[in-house]
Amino acid sequence: MTEQAVMVKMVLDRWNSLLRNCDECIQSLRADQLEKEIAPGKNRGIYLLGHLIATHDDLFRLLEIGEPLHGDLFEMFVKAPDKAVKDIPSVDRLKEVWGSQVALLTSMIGAISPDEWFGKHSAVSEADFEKEPHRNKLNVILTRTTHLSYHLGQLKLL
Amino acid sequence: MTEQAVMVKMVLDRWNSLLRNCDECIQSLRADQLEKEIAPGKNRGIYLLGHLIATHDDLFRLLEIGEPLHGDLFEMFVKAPDKAVKDIPSVDRLKEVWGSQVALLTSMIGAISPDEWFGKHSAVSEADFEKEPHRNKLNVILTRTTHLSYHLGQLKLL
Repeated sequence: MTEQAVMVKMVLDRWNSLLRNCDECIQSLRADQLEKEIAPGKNRGIYLLGHLIATHDDLFRLLEIGEPLHGDLFEMFVKAPDKAVKDIPSVDRLKEVWGSQVALLTSMIGAISPDEWFGKHSAVSEADFEKEPHRNKLNVILTRTTHLSYHLGQLKLL
Repeated sequence: MTEQAVMVKMVLDRWNSLLRNCDECIQSLRADQLEKEIAPGKNRGIYLLGHLIATHDDLFRLLEIGEPLHGDLFEMFVKAPDKAVKDIPSVDRLKEVWGSQVALLTSMIGAISPDEWFGKHSAVSEADFEKEPHRNKLNVILTRTTHLSYHLGQLKLL
């Protein structure tokens, strides 16, 4: 096992494990639970669910494995704060989208080779990447892993 | 920059950034805020603060850079659930310990070479490490980084 492959395994193990935990948490929560605020006056569970889907949707573009599928959710759940947009999808619909996204991302991410992980992601230029080689695809997963963990800690309060 | 150094930078950047965010969050909260529950019926902020100190205290042993300094906090904030132990240190005392620990850890972690990061941590045997080279020191920081992010998401609710 090359050191590169070891590093990829380390990061993907964390990502997959947190994604699985988060999936179990989301699927175990009823609609009325996800519609509650995680703490008084804070974001609702449904907002965090939409926020995670919208954030992960951008991975297809950044990792160059496809195009975003849910641009509308980005407006509702990233650009706008919770409760600002009235007409959002139902919990059941978001749970469906989340489930398909987890399956698709897991299969596409599993097909990326260790060497490709250390290539630049799509939002950095060739020139910048030469100076800052840490701005690679694996780093995108690493930052999304800590983002996922942050919000999982909140969803677990529901 | 070697590929090894790039990998170390990726993980340490995440760790340092979350540790700094968490430090700012903790130092900005008054004692009466940290004594509140993060959500009704859930852990108090003071418990999460003690829990993070106790978890990070174990890093000295795992990374082979020293000995744990706060074994008593492990009993109170990891083994026992919140509110089970009545006689715990004050918020002010825990904030002091947290601050010193952040400074000490940051300085000691900064002195570890890229090559050492890919060496085994103290809780894995040489034989197991040969089969599972991902059980290295850098992976310890990676798992502690997602743990920190999980609880930071909760502390931010206070």
